[in-house]
Order: sequence, then structure tokens, then C-alpha cells
Amino acid sequence: MEETFVPLRGIKNDLNGRLLCYKQDWTGGLRAGIRILAPTTYIFFASAIPVISFGEQLERNTEGALTAVQTLASTALCGFIHSIVGGQPLLILGVAEPTVLMYTFMFNFAKDRKDLGPNLFLAWTGWVCVWTALLLFLLAVLGACSIINRFTRVAGELFGLLIAMLFMQQAIRGVVEEFGLPEREDPRETALQPAWRFGNGMFALVLSFGLLLTALKSRKARSWRYGTGWLRGIIADYGVPIMVVVWTGLSYIPVRDVPAGIPRRLFSPNPWSPGAYSNWTVVKEMVHVPPLYIIGAFIPATMIAVLYYFDHSVASQLAQQKEFNLKKPASYHYDLLLLGVLVIVCGLLGIPPSNGVIPQSPMHTKSLATLKHQLLRNKLVSTARKSISKNSNLGQLYRNMQEAYNEMQTPLVYQQPSALGLKELKESTIQLASSTGYIDAPVDETVFDVNKDVDDLLPVEVKEQRLSNLLQAIMVGTCVAAMPLLKKIPTSVLWGYFAFMAIESLPGNQFWERILLLFTAPSRRYKVLEDSHATFIETVPFKTIAWFTLFQTAYLLVCFGLTWIPIAGVLFPLLIMLLVPVRQYLLPKFFKGAHLQDLDAAEYEEAPAVSYNIAFEVSAVFSTLCAPTGTLQMT
Amino acid sequence: MEETFVPLRGIKNDLNGRLLCYKQDWTGGLRAGIRILAPTTYIFFASAIPVISFGEQLERNTEGALTAVQTLASTALCGFIHSIVGGQPLLILGVAEPTVLMYTFMFNFAKDRKDLGPNLFLAWTGWVCVWTALLLFLLAVLGACSIINRFTRVAGELFGLLIAMLFMQQAIRGVVEEFGLPEREDPRETALQPAWRFGNGMFALVLSFGLLLTALKSRKARSWRYGTGWLRGIIADYGVPIMVVVWTGLSYIPVRDVPAGIPRRLFSPNPWSPGAYSNWTVVKEMVHVPPLYIIGAFIPATMIAVLYYFDHSVASQLAQQKEFNLKKPASYHYDLLLLGVLVIVCGLLGIPPSNGVIPQSPMHTKSLATLKHQLLRNKLVSTARKSISKNSNLGQLYRNMQEAYNEMQTPLVYQQPSALGLKELKESTIQLASSTGYIDAPVDETVFDVNKDVDDLLPVEVKEQRLSNLLQAIMVGTCVAAMPLLKKIPTSVLWGYFAFMAIESLPGNQFWERILLLFTAPSRRYKVLEDSHATFIETVPFKTIAWFTLFQTAYLLVCFGLTWIPIAGVLFPLLIMLLVPVRQYLLPKFFKGAHLQDLDAAEYEEAPAVSYNIAFEVSAVFSTLCAPTGTLQMT
Repeated sequence: MEETFVPLRGIKNDLNGRLLCYKQDWTGGLRAGIRILAPTTYIFFASAIPVISFGEQLERNTEGALTAVQTLASTALCGFIHSIVGGQPLLILGVAEPTVLMYTFMFNFAKDRKDLGPNLFLAWTGWVCVWTALLLFLLAVLGACSIINRFTRVAGELFGLLIAMLFMQQAIRGVVEEFGLPEREDPRETALQPAWRFGNGMFALVLSFGLLLTALKSRKARSWRYGTGWLRGIIADYGVPIMVVVWTGLSYIPVRDVPAGIPRRLFSPNPWSPGAYSNWTVVKEMVHVPPLYIIGAFIPATMIAVLYYFDHSVASQLAQQKEFNLKKPASYHYDLLLLGVLVIVCGLLGIPPSNGVIPQSPMHTKSLATLKHQLLRNKLVSTARKSISKNSNLGQLYRNMQEAYNEMQTPLVYQQPSALGLKELKESTIQLASSTGYIDAPVDETVFDVNKDVDDLLPVEVKEQRLSNLLQAIMVGTCVAAMPLLKKIPTSVLWGYFAFMAIESLPGNQFWERILLLFTAPSRRYKVLEDSHATFIETVPFKTIAWFTLFQTAYLLVCFGLTWIPIAGVLFPLLIMLLVPVRQYLLPKFFKGAHLQDLDAAEYEEAPAVSYNIAFEVSAVFSTLCAPTGTLQMT
Repeated sequence: MEETFVPLRGIKNDLNGRLLCYKQDWTGGLRAGIRILAPTTYIFFASAIPVISFGEQLERNTEGALTAVQTLASTALCGFIHSIVGGQPLLILGVAEPTVLMYTFMFNFAKDRKDLGPNLFLAWTGWVCVWTALLLFLLAVLGACSIINRFTRVAGELFGLLIAMLFMQQAIRGVVEEFGLPEREDPRETALQPAWRFGNGMFALVLSFGLLLTALKSRKARSWRYGTGWLRGIIADYGVPIMVVVWTGLSYIPVRDVPAGIPRRLFSPNPWSPGAYSNWTVVKEMVHVPPLYIIGAFIPATMIAVLYYFDHSVASQLAQQKEFNLKKPASYHYDLLLLGVLVIVCGLLGIPPSNGVIPQSPMHTKSLATLKHQLLRNKLVSTARKSISKNSNLGQLYRNMQEAYNEMQTPLVYQQPSALGLKELKESTIQLASSTGYIDAPVDETVFDVNKDVDDLLPVEVKEQRLSNLLQAIMVGTCVAAMPLLKKIPTSVLWGYFAFMAIESLPGNQFWERILLLFTAPSRRYKVLEDSHATFIETVPFKTIAWFTLFQTAYLLVCFGLTWIPIAGVLFPLLIMLLVPVRQYLLPKFFKGAHLQDLDAAEYEEAPAVSYNIAFEVSAVFSTLCAPTGTLQMT
């Protein structure tokens, strides 16, 4: 992406790019058929459950002015609009923790003012949203997102890990609180006596760990050895939602002697109960806000704007990482503009606005990559089987598979149809065949092992479309109506789910993988090389990797510490943005350009020519990494 | 082993065989050094924890006449004697569940008799033990153990799985009972109110699952990727005991508001409290037992004798399975004779007798195999490293390793020193070298990958010695003195440990592995072939495996059902013994000889010559098993 600060050019570029593939965004989604429901359900749960929990938190903090009904409504509405008219449909929108923190600060400020008070709180936040939206428009028009490519891996992954830490913190805090007295309830209730509180806490441990462990196991079902293929597929695709239902069901087992209220369950008013919709008419009250406060609203608005500008862009960026081999263009500027519109709409409706969320957005892309892989795989396996049964030779087999592959690739107007995936497939197959002299003989499964080869050779590709995003937004919307059902979920299952999300967001995060590498025994490092691994493991000396990772970890811990400081906590994105100049000007002083390029490729740095010196270091790394095993050492 | 029913010949043969290696049994143990503590501690916990729990059970059932002090004392005493003068030192002795059941029946019988009552109960069991011992002497002298080779794998493994089921049943029942009212306690205690009982049960779930999961994880520490080698070694060797300590420590965390008695902990009198040692003088009271009851004691004695004859021999057999490649001889007859002596000693002391236990005995052998593997590996790796650093060629390397290997092999008087392990090592290394043309060049780690190759090529060998058995018996003995410490262990940790033992006993049990095979998806069966696997998987058609396994499972379930019937439950060994004629006369009618031989090798059946017909079937199996992947298929 070029860095363009010419007004509106960024938005125009984005729109041009996405309009070209807009139709395919829908047809592609529809063509996936029923299987699109797998990533949809997966993301729906990842989206709805935190939003419900943030809603509960907001309800406690704002004395009931905002509840889970409002957070769900905002998530559904913004998700719905974004999935239809948004730029990047991989981006998932939702009410996030920073928004909750900001609204809490604003409520605490407003409730004590004589001329504002709890009554005009939502009207005042309406003004905050208006200012925020204006700032976002300004940023979008001026092309502020152009600097997104200065947000290298080091910043994005640090932010991802920070979010994972915050989710994990929430999970731990939630379970600990199950042992304590909840704030708003009557402490004389039976379920709140010390004995039952102890039982409730222990039950919460069982439910949350039960959900966490079974959910993690179920995600790996595809590689299980037991059970039929379709069962394993169902469990891998829908295991997490199923486990939420199963553990909710299990939470109903203890009935005899156990009082109501154990385990604690979600607490939220039904959307049709009186009072729950009193704040939908907030726009009428906005005129009653004193002018001084209307102007003062600009101060929180700047914070929120900075936060959203950062969050929204980084969430979008993490959903579009290089490894995913996306084929459709990004849309940072236009999406920021649209976010401004959504913020105004939410402000006028008196609901907290949504923005792009982590880890849901990268989770969304990952689940769509799995879907695409499954679809491609099924098609190619059946093609290969058919060819083999017709006694084709390898050349014919390959031609048939190429045809099938091309059928699956929708030629996009803005891009040449790519045969990248198949080229690789062909090369390795041909190589295998010529080495065994089978090139003209009828192929059988010793030469071409259908199940395994197709699996190994398929490149990562993502089913890029809008349908899954639209459907998950609609499902979040139905949650508002399904409140009585949602209230059956124990809060402890929620905490287990938070921990699950934190852990699910780790694989693929190179920062995390480097931390693990630091703890890997030197004699076992060859195992890292045996698995699929990033290039830096082979090209950067271990010591450099270690220092780089230690620096990043220290930075992460500072950011994490900052979130504990009340008002400053909301501004931790500023600290992460500070990483941009640090990366650009400070880090090159301590690390060699070639190493930095491998650890944290930045488009603004040119890849240096590989000199003899570097080649020498490469082999030095090899010996460092492989010394005890020598599997890769050459003499 | 020949089937000899000539009186005393079996005992003489056993003694001759074991005396030849008696000295080496001690020197070999001492030479292992400090590392012998790893299998010792592992088996000590596996031995002591169930014995303590059976003691508690016995205490409830006999109104305190027998407690954990007595079961521990019996286990320690019998283990001590057996480890010094016993035949097979791999066999672990302990008070087992069937003994507890028999003593419960006898107590219920005795307590209601006017002229016997609870006071003479132990004196009467003294007489039962005398009769039992006489019967055991008779069986040993007449060579009854000669038929042990008719106990094929099908019977032994069925028994092993039955014991695993009983352990698991006890674990589940134990955890469920944590929610209920314990029998002997005052129901007005705070800790026994419904609210606290609920909390106690949930806490028990946390503790037992916590122990189970962490103990299972820790056993696999050697293959972890993280942490230094010695730390991984320590965790793998001592992880299970450490976890018992850790979870006991964690059980002390909840203090505020939580009443004493939560979680429930082991309950047993200290051996120095009054009453705990009143029954050590039981021999004096034996004369007071009415003559009719002395004669009547013969009836329970026959049952116990049958039980012990079976249990003791099968435990010994499972500890000496073929896969372990043991080098020292078995000692069934002599050990049965010694068991008779031990039964009399225990009877006169008024403590329940011990016999060979499952799964502890095979667990013992397995842990000694791991020890031997580690010792051999360390020696060979350091030898290989030295040779490589001296630029030896492959021939020299091999000679050096052979020397080191021979040093580790104590030449036994009764056996030619075997070079089996090294032969294999040599062949594969030479083969590798000649294929790469490196035969005369100095070896480096590309040709001979020290860490990996040594690990892969070392045969299973067991450190056969008496020291670990002696030490574990002494440690069990110190438990009697350490009662106040043991009482800190929560009962729920015990239940978790029972489940752990059940699961630990499964790997290596071919019956269990065949059950898993039935649930393995056909398309994944090639994975079984990729791992190390038993021959039958390649040579017996899947359908035959399935029918054989289903028959065995049905038989297992009948045996399991039988254990639920009060008095008949003790005699389930009879049903398992019935498997001997079933295997010998019935099964050959339904299964082909060659298949039976592979599924359940019986020494009394000669291996049939491999005919064309069989070869044909073999390839048919291959295609059945491997069809979807074809990795092993030849055309």
C-alpha cells in the first residue's frame, strides 16, 4: 500500500478495489453452501460471549443505564451494516473492553454533575460519539491509515498478545470472583452464605476448566484417531458451541438441596422488560445537554478516536496477515470512514459503539482458511480418485486436478487467475514420479497418496466472502431476543470461554512462538525445525532472537502494567503506537538489518542483498540450533 | 516352562534358577546408584496409596478391628520378606481389594455369633490364614503353577483390564461419595451441612481431576519440548509423587470461613494411639476359638487360597511378559510356597495378608525398563560422542559402543552373555553407512545421530534387581510411623490417584489396544501401523480381530458384573480361570490357528507352518488396513 496523504485518495482506492470483488464476496459465500455455518457459528460464539460479559460489566458500572441488551444490539447492528457496506468483510465488529472502560469513566464523571447526572449521561455520550465520528472522518479523509504499513508484525503481535493477556486476566478474575460476594445482590440470600459461596466457587472451577479443556480438545478433532470422518469434522467445526451447551446442561445436574443461584448465571434484563428500552430515544434528550458539556465532550472523544483508529486498523491488519495469502484488497481508509458513521448511529441510539475486535477478527480469517482448505481438499481428492480409477497416468491426473482447482478459483477481475497452489502440487508430484520412474504408468496410490498428498500440498487460502460476517451479526441480533435462553449459561462457563479465546489466539503469533523457543531445551530445537516454522528460525542467530524477544516481552509487560492504571489504561494504544518510531529508528541500531527483516519484515525497509557474511552467519545459526542433533548440518 | 507335576520339582527348579542370579540381584541394584530411587518412589506411591485406602474401607467394614495401620504393616512386612527371600523380585506384594472383601464377609459372619463375636474375629481369621497357608503349600509342592503357561495373554490381559475397571470404579464412587454424608461421622458437624457437602464434593472434583491430569502429563515429561533435560527427567521420574504433594498443598489454600473437615482427609488412628495395637497379640487368643469354628475356617480358606493362587501367579506373569525381554528366570512355585509362609505370619499377627498385586507389579517392571533404558542410553551416547570427537570411523565407533554395552551387561552364570541389543544397533548403523558410502570416513552426526539413533535402537531391557522392591517395602513401613503426615492427604487426591493407576495400566495391554483399534476410523488405521505395534495388526484380518475382541469384552463385562454380587464377587477369579479351557478347546473352533497364535500365543500350541494360503491372507489384511492410504501396499 502506498503512503498517500492526498485527501480522499485512500478512500477512493479502497472503494475501487473492493467494488471489483463485491459481487464475488456474495456469490463465493453462497457457493460454500451449508459449510459456511461452521466458521459462522464459531465466530458468533467468539463474538457474542465476550459482548454479553462486557454488557454485564457495563451494567454494574453504569447502575443499569447500559446492559448486555445494548452491547448486543450495537454489535449486531454494526456487524450487519459493516458486513454489507463495509470494506474488509473479514473484520469482525463488536463492543470491546476499552469501550467499556471509557463508558465507565464517562459515567463516573457524569453522575456527580448537578446539570448532567445519570439521566443525561447517555445524551452526553451521544455528543461524545458525534465528536469521535468527526475525528474519525478527518483521519479517514486525510489518509491516516496509510501509515498502517509502519505497523509491523512487532506491534501487531504485541497488541494481539496483550489482548490475550487481558482475556486471560478476565477469566482468572471471573473465577476468583465466583468465590466472593457479588456486588449488587442481597447478601442474605441462601446462595450467598459462606458455605454456598465456597461450593459455588468450586463448581465454577469445575465448569470453567471443563469448558476450556474440552473446547481445546474438540478443535483438534480432525486429527483424532477415533470416530468416523464426518463425526470428527462436526466436532472440529462445532465443538466449541456444543461444549458451551454441554457444560451449561451439566451445570443443571445438582438440584437436590442446592439453592437457586448456584452456579451463578448470566444476569441481564429481557429486552421487553420495562426500562430496558427507555434509552432508545436518547437523541431527543441530546438538546438538553448544557453547551459547556457539549464542547467538553471533545476531550473523551479524542481518546476514543485514537483508540478506535488504532484498534480498528490493527484488527483489520491482523485479519489480513501475509500468511493467509489473501487475494482481495484491504480497505483501511474506507472502513475507518464507515466506523465514523457507525459511531454516530450508535451515539444517537444511546448504545455503546462497536469497533474492529481482536482476537475475533484473526480467528475469523483462520476459520475461513480451514473452510477453504476443506472445500478444496474434498474437490481435489474426489477428482484424484476418479482419475486413478480410470487408470490415468500422472500427467492426466495432474490436468484433471488443475481443472478442478481452477473451477474453485473464481477469476477476479482485478487479478490474474493464479495457479500458485497447483504449481506447487504439480512440481512435487512430478518430482516424486520421475524419481520412482512412474511418470507414464497408470497412477496408483503408492505414487500419489490421495488423502495425504493433497492435504500436505494445498496452500493456505481463505474463503473471502461477506456471508459469514453477515450471518454472525444476525445471530448476535437474535441473542437480544434469546435473552431468556442465554441467561441459562453459567458465568463460569463464560470465564472458561475467555480463557479458551486467549489460548486460541496464540498459535500463529510469531512473538508467542519466539517466547516458546526461548523455553525450548537446546537439544529439542531441532523439533521446531521439523514442524512448519517461520524462516527467522533458520536465518537469525538464536542470541539475536532471544534479545529481540526479551525486548518485546519487556515492552508487553509495560503495556500490561499500564492497563492497570485507571484513566491512563485506556491510552495503552499510544504506547503501542510508540513502537512504530521505536521499530523504525531505534531497533536498527541494535539489530542487523537482515535479521530485523526476518524477524519483523517492514515494507519500508529494503531487503538487503545477501552477502557472504550473512551466508556465514546462517551456517553458524545452523550449528547453534542443531549442534546436538546435527540433522541439518553440512560439512 | 515345562509342565511338571512331580512333587517339589517346580520349587527346586525355581530355587536353582534364582540362586544363580541372587548376588547379581543386589549388585545390579546397587550399581544403578541414586537413580534407583525413581522407580522406587513411583512404586512406593502406587503401593501405599491403595493400601491406605483399602485400610480405611476395612476400618469402616470391621468397626475398627482393622485399620490402615494393619494393611500398611502387612504390605511392608510381606514386601520386605519377599524382596529378600522371594523368588521373583519384580513382583510387588500388597493387601488387595479381594482380601478386603473376604475380611468384610468374615467379619459380618463372626460378629453375630455368640461364641465368636468381634472380639475373637481376628483370632478366627488367624485360623483361616493357617488353613489357607496349608492349601497354598499343597498347591506349591504339587506344582500347580505349572499350568501357568495355559494362562495365555487373553486371560492375563482380561484380568488386568478388570482390575483397571475396579480401580476406576473406586475412583468414581469415591468422588461421588464426597458429596454425601460419610457413615461414621456426626451429621451435625458444620462441614457436613448440605451447603458444605456440596462445596466439599466440588472441591473433590477439582482435586481429583487436578491430580489425574497433572500426573498423566508429568509421566510424559521426557518428550516435552520445554525445560532442560534434567528437569524433564526429574518430572518424568518423580512427577506423580510430586503431584500428590502439590495437590495436597493446594487443598490447604481455602482457609477463611471454610470449616475443618473440608476437604475430607485420610482418617486412620496413629499407630501409637491406644487400641491401634491391641490386635498384635492375636496369636494368644487363637486357642479360645471354639473347635467347630476352627474346622469351619477351612471354607473361607479354600476361597482365599484359590484367589491367592490365581492373583499371585497372574501378577507375577504380567510382570514378566515377553515384551520385557527379561533375562532372569521366573519363580512361580517357590513364590507360592513363600506366600503360604507370609499368610501364616500375617494371620498370627492379626493383620490381613498381602499377595502379588496388579497393576503395581507390571508397573514396577515398566518403570525398571525405563530406568535401564536411561542408564544404557547415557552410557552409549557418551561413548559415541567420545568416538566421534576422536574422528573414529563407523567400525571403531561400533566397537567402542559394543565394549560399553558389554560393560553394562553383567554376564550371568546361567546364561551366555547376549549381544542382541547391539547386533541390531550395528546392523542398522552399518546399513545406513554403506547406503551413504560413509563406511570408512570419520563418522559425524549426519551418519550417526547420537541422541536419536541410540534412543530408537536400544531394545527393551529391564533392570532386574531386588533393591527397588526392598526400598519400597521399607518406605511403606515408614508410612506407619508417618501416619500424621499421611492424614494430610485429601481423600479426593486418593480417588484421582486411583483413576491415574487405572489409566497407567492400560498401555501395553493388547486387549485394550484392540478395543481402541475397533474405534479407530478405517482411514486412520495406517497411523497404528506407523507407530510401534503388535504383529497381529498386520497378520490377522480386521474382522477376526474384531470378533475376538468382542468376545473378550463380553467376557470381561460378565466378570465385572460378577464382582457386584456380594459373596460370589470374591470368586470372579474362577470365571477367569474358566478362560483356560475356553481358550484351549472352544476358541480354536471359531478362529484359525495362525490367527489365534498371533492374537494370543499359547506355548502349548505349535506355530503352524506359514502356507501360501496364509501369505495370501496377510496381503489381504494389508489392503484392508491400508487401502485409503496405501503407504504399505505393494503392487
